[in-house]
This record gives sequence, C-alpha cells and structure tokens, in this order.
Amino acid sequence: MADNERTNDAGRENVVYIGKKPTMNYVLAVVTQFNSGMSEVVIKARGNAISRAVDVKEIVQNKFLPGLKEKSIKTSSEEISNEDGTKSKVSAIQIVLMK
Amino acid sequence: MADNERTNDAGRENVVYIGKKPTMNYVLAVVTQFNSGMSEVVIKARGNAISRAVDVKEIVQNKFLPGLKEKSIKTSSEEISNEDGTKSKVSAIQIVLMK
Repeated sequence: MADNERTNDAGRENVVYIGKKPTMNYVLAVVTQFNSGMSEVVIKARGNAISRAVDVKEIVQNKFLPGLKEKSIKTSSEEISNEDGTKSKVSAIQIVLMK
Repeated sequence: MADNERTNDAGRENVVYIGKKPTMNYVLAVVTQFNSGMSEVVIKARGNAISRAVDVKEIVQNKFLPGLKEKSIKTSSEEISNEDGTKSKVSAIQIVLMK
C-alpha cells in the first residue's frame, strides 16, 4: 500500500490513519485536509499508534488550527488476523476534529 | 455526603496512573477500585503510555466489568522538565469510567 491519505476528492476521505511515520507528517495531513475545505477530519489509530494520534490532535489544535473543536473521541477493540492465522485484539481510537 | 466515597486514604484516590508495567497490572488496579466501592475510576497516562491506557479501558469494559460506562475521554498537553533543564510538551489522556 502506498502512503498518503490525501484523497481530497468527494466521497468522504477526511480520514487520516496514523502509522509509524514521523508525527509531523500526520499533523500536516490533517491541516491540509482542513485547508482544502473539509469541515471535519477523523484521526484513526490502532495499537501503539494511539499515542501518536493524541500527539497529532494536540499539535494541530495547539499550534496550527487553534479554532478547531473536538467533536468526539471514541475507543474500541478490533480483531486482527496474525500472520500465523491466529487472531488478536487490538485497541483503536477515533478522534473527530471539526471547524 | 454519602459514604460510597470510599477514598482509600487521602482525598480522592480513584486515579490509576498508567506506566510501564504490564497492562494487566493496571487492569487489576481499576477492577479492584470498582470492587472496593468506587463509583468512578480515572485512568491517566502520558506519552507512550496513552496506548496502554486505552488497552486498559477496553479490557476492563470488555472482559471484567461489562456494565461500566465511559463518562469522558479528554486529552491535553502537559509540559515536563527534562533532566537538562529544558522543557518538552507531552500529550496526556484522562479516561473516566463509571458504574
């Protein structure tokens, strides 16, 4: 899978998935989405990336777009399939920011 | 004042701080607090421990005390002093569970 989540087309690709890249990459992705006209952006992460998702939210709100509001923060458990065919549970977070 | 405010000693010790120990240690701490009569428990974490805090919440709710409700999830930024005297920002999370 290639990298960017910059599908600023119609649909509703206002979701930024947090992975292992530097935090500022995701901060930029969120800021770009708002600047391209989105009124809402969803930040999603699983497992260890959850901490980075919170960093992204805090940096976007405190340094880049201070007028943003937090619409919701939800956590959940997802089941993932391991390479050996077994399944594990992993925690996930979904943070929705809005203008 | 009702007496179900069974604070262990000081003011309101219904807070579980998430650190680097195994996740199940913190799960047990939260479950123990509810079982000792607390109607609300606060889970707090900073930095990389934020992911573990979400794991703790999910495991407590899904495996141990399925009747619990999520009262709130809040994130914030805190300033910490480094050993060399400089300061850094670190993200934090506070999850409140209630009976």
